[in-house]
Amino acid sequence: MDFTQTEARIRASFAQQSMMQTIGAELVEIEEGRVTITAPVSAHVLQQQGFAHGGMVFSIADSAAGYSALSTLPADSEVMSVEVKINYLAPATGHLEAIGRVIKPGRRLVVVGADVWSTDNGKRRHVAILQGTMIPVGA
Amino acid sequence: MDFTQTEARIRASFAQQSMMQTIGAELVEIEEGRVTITAPVSAHVLQQQGFAHGGMVFSIADSAAGYSALSTLPADSEVMSVEVKINYLAPATGHLEAIGRVIKPGRRLVVVGADVWSTDNGKRRHVAILQGTMIPVGA
Amino acid sequence: MDFTQTEARIRASFAQQSMMQTIGAELVEIEEGRVTITAPVSAHVLQQQGFAHGGMVFSIADSAAGYSALSTLPADSEVMSVEVKINYLAPATGHLEAIGRVIKPGRRLVVVGADVWSTDNGKRRHVAILQGTMIPVGA
Amino acid sequence: MDFTQTEARIRASFAQQSMMQTIGAELVEIEEGRVTITAPVSAHVLQQQGFAHGGMVFSIADSAAGYSALSTLPADSEVMSVEVKINYLAPATGHLEAIGRVIKPGRRLVVVGADVWSTDNGKRRHVAILQGTMIPVGA
Repeated sequence: MDFTQTEARIRASFAQQSMMQTIGAELVEIEEGRVTITAPVSAHVLQQQGFAHGGMVFSIADSAAGYSALSTLPADSEVMSVEVKINYLAPATGHLEAIGRVIKPGRRLVVVGADVWSTDNGKRRHVAILQGTMIPVGA
Repeated sequence: MDFTQTEARIRASFAQQSMMQTIGAELVEIEEGRVTITAPVSAHVLQQQGFAHGGMVFSIADSAAGYSALSTLPADSEVMSVEVKINYLAPATGHLEAIGRVIKPGRRLVVVGADVWSTDNGKRRHVAILQGTMIPVGA
Repeated sequence: MDFTQTEARIRASFAQQSMMQTIGAELVEIEEGRVTITAPVSAHVLQQQGFAHGGMVFSIADSAAGYSALSTLPADSEVMSVEVKINYLAPATGHLEAIGRVIKPGRRLVVVGADVWSTDNGKRRHVAILQGTMIPVGA
Repeated sequence: MDFTQTEARIRASFAQQSMMQTIGAELVEIEEGRVTITAPVSAHVLQQQGFAHGGMVFSIADSAAGYSALSTLPADSEVMSVEVKINYLAPATGHLEAIGRVIKPGRRLVVVGADVWSTDNGKRRHVAILQGTMIPVGA
C-alpha cells in the first residue's frame, strides 16, 4: 500500500472535520498506526477555571486516535468511534499535542489509545490519556 | 440549602465555559442531581461525514454531567472531570439534548452519567451514553 | 422467536461458564434485554479488606450484561465482551445481585449496562455500575 | 523509603485477597510503579467457549494495577478501585501475565494501567488492556 495515499486521505478527511478548525487544531504528523494533532488552548475553548475544556482535550485525542486507526486500514475505509474513555491527569493550558496510536489493529474493530501533552512556559505535562474502540465503516 | 443560589452558581459557571458558547450550547434546566444542556449540530462542529463530531457530543455530555454533580455539592465547590467514558449509539444530527445525572453523590468523588438525544425531522434518537467520575475541588 | 429457546440457550451457556460456579453465581432471571445473576460474597472471593474483590463484582456484572445482549440476538449467536467499564460505588458485602440490561441493541455491536446491588443485614446498596460493548460472534 | 517494606506490605495484602487464590494467581514481581501477577487459565475460570472468563482476566489486571498504585504510596496506605475500563484484545488461553503500571501518581487519586499477556504453546499474545483510577484510603 502506498502510504502517501493513506496520508492524503487522512488529510482530506481531517480538512472536512469542521470541529477541528473550530477549536484551532492542526494535523501535524501521520505515521502508520500513529497520528499527531496539535491545538492551542485559546480563549474560546475553556472551562470555567480558564483551563482547556475537557471536551476540547477529548476532541483532539479522539480525532488523533481515530486517524491512527484509519492509517492501518484499506484505502476505502472510514472509521467511527464506538466508545472512548479518557482520564484527565492535569489541567491543560498552553499548547496541546495529542498523539493517537493503535493498540490492536483489526478488520472488525480497532483498539486505540491517545496521550495528550501540554506545553506551557516550556514545561511539558501529560494531561490526558484515552483508550477506546474504533469501527471501520464503508466510506 | 437554597437551590436558587445553586442554580445561579451553575449558570455563572456555565457562562464562563467559553467552549460551550463556541459550540452553541445552552444550559436549559437545572434540578438537584440533573442538568440539561442543548446544542444544535451546526456547520462548525462536524466530523468528516457531516455528523456531529464525537468531541462535540462529548463536550455537552461532560458539562451536563459535571453540573449535575455540582448541583449536589456545597456552595463553595467546583468540580473537575476525573475520567469519562462515552459510548456512541447513533450518528448525531439535528438538535442535541444532553441530560447529566448523578449516579452516586459523595464528598470525595461523584459518579455521574449522561445521555445525549438528537432530534432531527421530528425523530428523537439516543445518540450517546456517558459514565464518569467528578471530583469536588475548592472554588 | 420463541423466547423459551433463548432462555434455554442462555442457561446452557451459563452452565458452561465455570468461572460462575467458582464464585458461586446463579442465573436467576432472563427477560428480553435484561438478565439477573446473583452471588454471595463468600470467603473465597474477597480482597484484602474483606469486601468482595472488584473482579468478583465485575465477573457477575459482565456475565449479566453479556447475557442481556445475547437475549436480543438470533438463536445461533454467541457474544463476547469487547470492552467494559465499571465504577465501584460502595464496598460489596453480603449477597450480590447483578442486573444486566441492553442500552442499544444491534447486529454488529450491542451496548450494555449493568448495576450491582448488595444486600447485607437487610440493607440494599448500589455497589457498582457497568457500561460496555458486546460483539455477536458465530456460535 | 525502604522499598523492601513496601514489597512486604504488598505481599501481605495479596495473601489476604482470597479471590487471587481462588483463581490461582501469583504475585511474581514488585517494582515501584509496576507489579506483575500471573495465573493459569485453568478449568474453573472459563467462559462458555473455553477461554478465560473476562472477569478472571479483569481480576488479575485490577489487582496488578492496584498494587502498582500502592507501591508508590506511603506505608500506611491502602488503595481501592474507583473505576476500571478494560478492552479485550484476544481470547485468553494458556498462562496469563498481568502487568500493572502507574500512569499518574497522586495523593488523592492514582491513574493506572495494566496489560495482560497470554502464553499458549509458546505464543505470546496481548489479550487485554486496562485503564483505571485507584483511590488511596487509610489502612
